[in-house]
Order: sequence, then C-alpha cells, then structure tokens
Amino acid sequence: MPDPEPTPSSRSAAPEPVAANDNPWRRHSRRLAYENPWIEVHHDEVTRPDGQPGIYGVVHFRGRAVGIVAIDDEDRVVLVGQFRYTMGHYSWEIPEGGVPEGEDPLEGARRELREETGVEASTWREIGGLEIPNSISDEIGFMYLATGLTQGTAEPDPTEDLRVRRVPFTEVMAMVDRGEIPDALSQLALERVARLRGSSYEAVDPVDAAGSSEPR
Amino acid sequence: MPDPEPTPSSRSAAPEPVAANDNPWRRHSRRLAYENPWIEVHHDEVTRPDGQPGIYGVVHFRGRAVGIVAIDDEDRVVLVGQFRYTMGHYSWEIPEGGVPEGEDPLEGARRELREETGVEASTWREIGGLEIPNSISDEIGFMYLATGLTQGTAEPDPTEDLRVRRVPFTEVMAMVDRGEIPDALSQLALERVARLRGSSYEAVDPVDAAGSSEPR
Repeated sequence: MPDPEPTPSSRSAAPEPVAANDNPWRRHSRRLAYENPWIEVHHDEVTRPDGQPGIYGVVHFRGRAVGIVAIDDEDRVVLVGQFRYTMGHYSWEIPEGGVPEGEDPLEGARRELREETGVEASTWREIGGLEIPNSISDEIGFMYLATGLTQGTAEPDPTEDLRVRRVPFTEVMAMVDRGEIPDALSQLALERVARLRGSSYEAVDPVDAAGSSEPR
Repeated sequence: MPDPEPTPSSRSAAPEPVAANDNPWRRHSRRLAYENPWIEVHHDEVTRPDGQPGIYGVVHFRGRAVGIVAIDDEDRVVLVGQFRYTMGHYSWEIPEGGVPEGEDPLEGARRELREETGVEASTWREIGGLEIPNSISDEIGFMYLATGLTQGTAEPDPTEDLRVRRVPFTEVMAMVDRGEIPDALSQLALERVARLRGSSYEAVDPVDAAGSSEPR
C-alpha cells in the first residue's frame, strides 16, 4: 500500500495517534436488547475514541450473506423478484441468501441458488467479500460468479414468494443504471462482474479467470 | 424491462401469483424492541407470504447513508481510515456518513466530506442509490462522485478517530481487488466510478458526464 499522506491535524490537543490496528474503543458492558432467529441486537456501554462515555448498538447477524451472479450460455443473468418486507416494495435482485455459521459460504451459495431458482451451476468463482453496513452491524458476505447453468426445480423457503427470470447481461446493467436494482449486494456483484468482463461486457470464463493473474 | 421468463412453479398448490406490487405480507402488531439515536429495532408479528404466522425483526435507520468518491486533480481518491467498532478491525473506506431525515442527501454528503476530511469539492454528481441490506433493515444510501477538490481543515465527530490519505485511483482499485476495502458502500461506489471511466480508468468529468446519454 502507498504511504499515508500527511494531512493537517484537526485537533491540535489530540493524543498521539494509536497504531492503525489498535482499538480506540473500550467496551464496559453489553446487554442483549433483542434477538430473533436471524439477528441479535446488543446495547453496549463504551468509552469512545475521544475518551468520553458513549453507547453503541450493534446488530449481529447470525449468518453470512451470499450473492450469486449466475449467467447462462445465452449470457442471461438469473434474477429473483420478491416483495421486500423491510422496504415496502417489490425488488429484483440476484439470488441471495443467508448462510448459517458452520456452513461453507460456497456450499451455502450453491444451496441458495438451487432453492430459490432451481438452477445448478458447474463452475463457481468467488468475486469478492464485503461488509455491510459496518457502522451498525457486523454482517459480512461473499459474492460468486456461477456459469454452466442447468435448470431444475426451485424449493423456496416458505417465507419467500419468488419470481425468477433471466435477463441479458447488458440489459441487467441498464437496469442497474436506471435504478431498477436497488439492492446493494446485487449492484456490487454485478459491477464487479462488469469490470471483469471489461468495457465490452465480453463474457469471462470463471475457471480460466480464477487461475490468471488479472485483477479479479 | 424485458418480459418475465416463464419458470416452473415449485408449488403446484400455490395460489394465483399476486401482482408484482402487491405486498404478500400482513403485519398484525409491531413492538419497539430497541432504540438509540441512530436505529430503531421493531419486532413485528406477521402473516407470511405462504399464509402461515411468523415474525419479522426490522432495523430502521433514522438516517440515510451517503458515500463520496472524491478525486483530486492528480487522480487520487480520498480515503478515510478508522477502527470499526462493529467489525473489530481497522477499515479504509471512502468518506461516508449518515444524513438525518430532513437534510438533503447531497448537502449531507458535502458536510460529511468536509467534516471527515476537510475537503471541499466544486463539482458533484450522483452516481446511484442503494438499499443495504434489505432483508433485515430499511437503510438506503446515495453515492456521489466529487471533483475539483480543495483542502481545508477536518472537523470529525467526537466518536471518530480518523486518518485521511489520498491514493491513486488505479491503486485504490487494486486495494479493492486485494480485499483491502471490505466496506460494501465503498466498493460499490468505486466500482461504479471505474465503470464510468471505462477499462482504461480514464477520468470522467462529472459535469459533462451528467448531461450525456452514456450509462452512469
């Protein structure tokens, strides 16, 4: 990494900066404020980086998120539509799901793709990890590019009322540009794949690409 | 949008599908399980899309997220480093912040950039909105590309212990590829800008680009 650039200090009376990996927060107590099968909400009493007392509410996810950009031999992306209870609107997204701790994220991604869409893929490539949104929660996720698709029968979770469709990759990116795919994980995974493919959106082979020295 | 592709139904006894915009969930009660100045956690009793009783925990954000890709005349991106309490590690990100309801997101973005980094920008372009993560929360955000930078003095929030540095755009994308910028909002905003610039990462002018018909 390049050297940090010197920047003007905004607080002349500030103590010497801590080393980059030192935790400037101190936790004094933690109370479980809420839990359900998917999340825990903790209320912490802390000393803040400035030395003053404060609080922090942390939303802990009991699973990890996975998102899959699944592209078929006709260069169409598998999209899933559902009504998002939290947002109060219908949402088209890439297949996503929660992977319980203890399950391998890739296996979880295979399972979610199969359950939500009935699709199986012969080749899988991890295209990145992420943390969302790290100011308030500790959720992490993984993104995959899946190709070599075969269609089976979906087995959605009872809480899911899903529609599945396949949309050409270039049209999916146009949907992103029109704001029709608001979901952050979907947008990030699709942008990542678009960059892998280059400005011409030429398809990449996940197997070959994974073994090359190109940026993923 | 293209026509939905017919897909095999996984539940032969399922009722007729609802119209895409109909909410298949029914909420019967809502209890405030936790709140602090930044979030509210609601515990809802619901009827699920399959007609069975269920629960839903919703994390409501009292503000909206903004993230700013600020690029100076030497094509360097302004990054902010801080210890993320929720994740338990140090994190380099683009400048981000929470914008209270009632404040314009662009004004909030200008304020956060100025407070966190001391940087002001002469040209601003919105490069997309997002929802994160919509299975459990209702947080929305906006992303901006800011150029024409001038350096002033930062005024960070007392809870923030920030470092600021400027890193060449190509090196920032290499950091993304090495997993050194895990934050989802940062990754998405940077990928969006990378796509705007094209495979050569040639700088785009926000003002000109906003008026063009090119994909954002």
